[in-house]
Amino acid sequence: MECVAIGVCRSPYRQVGDAPRQGRLVDTESEIEVFPEYRAGLSDVERCSHLIVLYWQDRADRTALSATPPGEVRSRGVFSTRSPNRPNPIAFSVVDLLSIEDGVLRVRGLDALDGSPLLDIKPYSSAVDAIEGAGVDWMRQMSPHPVGRD
Amino acid sequence: MECVAIGVCRSPYRQVGDAPRQGRLVDTESEIEVFPEYRAGLSDVERCSHLIVLYWQDRADRTALSATPPGEVRSRGVFSTRSPNRPNPIAFSVVDLLSIEDGVLRVRGLDALDGSPLLDIKPYSSAVDAIEGAGVDWMRQMSPHPVGRD
Repeated sequence: MECVAIGVCRSPYRQVGDAPRQGRLVDTESEIEVFPEYRAGLSDVERCSHLIVLYWQDRADRTALSATPPGEVRSRGVFSTRSPNRPNPIAFSVVDLLSIEDGVLRVRGLDALDGSPLLDIKPYSSAVDAIEGAGVDWMRQMSPHPVGRD
Repeated sequence: MECVAIGVCRSPYRQVGDAPRQGRLVDTESEIEVFPEYRAGLSDVERCSHLIVLYWQDRADRTALSATPPGEVRSRGVFSTRSPNRPNPIAFSVVDLLSIEDGVLRVRGLDALDGSPLLDIKPYSSAVDAIEGAGVDWMRQMSPHPVGRD
């Protein structure tokens, strides 16, 4: 299963450790550039208020099966965490769409490192994607940055 | 960017057209089998109420850049739709976790066709993933099946 880069993420986060724990917790704006050959697929995207962005975490460790969530002391199975280090390092972000111009989306809420390959964009719909009261212990109390990291 | 299958989705949806428009709108239960070599990553997943499941839509048309949403008359740019046909056919589903046993997750809300390769499992957290009032016209009024399809 070979993925193609349909674009690239441009952000102020230059290297591992720069990005916030979850992009939605900070106000940083980023850009998503969609390559010319895929721009026909962006038609009508301007009518979406929020987008699901899937991107490839190209600096991840794909051999990891456990991770220690920020602020936790013991490691957890990687599929119970949002660590970038996992067998298929596909990140999921929900972003606010601010503008689109010439194939470049300006967004808020993206936690991608600068240069991360873009895989997909989908409309976010509260009707099916927003679920109240769901979570796991180590994500319920979240601050923008891990405890003790700043 | 090569993805590996970390497991497989088992569902009652055998072929294209069997699956509901969005899995969350029906009560069907499915199974997700994680392959033995990745099961260490499932530790602690039983503490999650809802999971994000990414799977590969292996019967998709990857050349499509437009799609006509169910009930609509004109086509839209594929990135403004949830069509399975897209350059990287990675599906995003949010499921209720019902049980885990021997590497097999029983879930509700998955819309995968039977046999779809599993790519990733992540914990869903309302704190970052639930956004109210977001959407796009053709997803606001959703019925489990497209208008006129039944």
